[in-house]
Amino acid sequence: MAQDRIPELKEGERIDDLQRSELRIIQDPERFCFGMDAVLLSGFAWAPAGSRVIDLGTGTGILPLLMSAKTKAAHFTGLEIQPGSADMAKRSVRMNGLEDRIEIVEGDIRDADKRFERGSFHVVVSNPPYIAPDRGLHNPSAPRAIARHEILCNFDDVARVASKLLVQGGKFYLVHRPERLVELFSTLRAHKLEPKRMRVVYPYVDSAPSMILIESVLGGRQEMKIEKPLLIYEGHTQQYTEEVVELYGY
Amino acid sequence: MAQDRIPELKEGERIDDLQRSELRIIQDPERFCFGMDAVLLSGFAWAPAGSRVIDLGTGTGILPLLMSAKTKAAHFTGLEIQPGSADMAKRSVRMNGLEDRIEIVEGDIRDADKRFERGSFHVVVSNPPYIAPDRGLHNPSAPRAIARHEILCNFDDVARVASKLLVQGGKFYLVHRPERLVELFSTLRAHKLEPKRMRVVYPYVDSAPSMILIESVLGGRQEMKIEKPLLIYEGHTQQYTEEVVELYGY
Repeated sequence: MAQDRIPELKEGERIDDLQRSELRIIQDPERFCFGMDAVLLSGFAWAPAGSRVIDLGTGTGILPLLMSAKTKAAHFTGLEIQPGSADMAKRSVRMNGLEDRIEIVEGDIRDADKRFERGSFHVVVSNPPYIAPDRGLHNPSAPRAIARHEILCNFDDVARVASKLLVQGGKFYLVHRPERLVELFSTLRAHKLEPKRMRVVYPYVDSAPSMILIESVLGGRQEMKIEKPLLIYEGHTQQYTEEVVELYGY
Repeated sequence: MAQDRIPELKEGERIDDLQRSELRIIQDPERFCFGMDAVLLSGFAWAPAGSRVIDLGTGTGILPLLMSAKTKAAHFTGLEIQPGSADMAKRSVRMNGLEDRIEIVEGDIRDADKRFERGSFHVVVSNPPYIAPDRGLHNPSAPRAIARHEILCNFDDVARVASKLLVQGGKFYLVHRPERLVELFSTLRAHKLEPKRMRVVYPYVDSAPSMILIESVLGGRQEMKIEKPLLIYEGHTQQYTEEVVELYGY
């Protein structure tokens, strides 16, 4: 079994159980650990059987790992600019015995349309850096800062590349922050990615949302379907709702 | 008291109690009665003390009537193209003794920027026709069809006029359908109305939304605040939530 392979861990790294199909992931809490955003996106995104999928900014590979278990997509590419994260992702893929379905590529999102053939993916997913670059950022070269702030790429880069890599009618799934919603729609449309489906993620039924999940279609016609709210916690407890428990696979 | 004035009713008309400040409204169920959308918009919109407000497509005047009770705005203009609705609105204003604060004007939204001085309103509100014009529409000249379908004006007309009538920094409040969200944002921005605040209205906590409330600011800077969900019904009952009860003033 894949899980019997001996993991190769570096200092500070640990192995976390993904609670699904016996998948495990190598992470370094000092650098960056995947968040609920990636888990929610893996449940919102869909890749048809036999499809080719690319994750722009894969980090430690959480999205290809989870989606390999949840879908029958033929192949996943995880593109990551940070060598440390890409290296962990590669070792996680090997540890899970998924080398045939997942390839981790170290590289820049901004050049991805040169590196990969145009129109060669059916699905693009991305959990991009959320936060506009901040001049006061303490350490802009830190892995966590690069993953969270738009230091090495901004949303326009991500949408432009997604648009070029997708086949006509291909789908782009993303998670982002509510405060960027207007800009997201406008940028997606500028790249012919029509936002078609959205879920608003509310921690509590009476709180402002923390995240937005958007499905866009390359060349899609104009019509938005907003789905039921995605609630993280049940009532005012710290208990996850049934839907979130199901997404985490507990 | 205003309520002692003798109402002048025409055939088919009735008087409904607005459950707030003893306000009443004349409506004709055969033509069009105000809906929950107008009530929710009257709670979402805000007009500062002393401000000048215009309602584009006021129908029977529901928004100026409710907002006259909820705010200290100095003056409301209700613009309505349908003579029958405008006439009912005028009589409702008189019946409530609000002639000093509310003026109903019969006219076309598309010409409103010629009729009223540019930059002469602090607040614009609108519950515009929601539905794209349908070639198969049974009776496109019926009052109900004109109120609901984009027959005599479309959203671009409403946004263009709102933009011209507002002062810089003035606010435009609207209610519309979720499936039009991407187009609404794009049209608002095209007229320098930056969407700044939004509530998604869900009938039930596990249903898709039925309406969207949006506040835009003329010349506002880019940043969206999505607020907590607005739920219409408590659980799976047919009981309104506390928030909706409060908006209706029961």
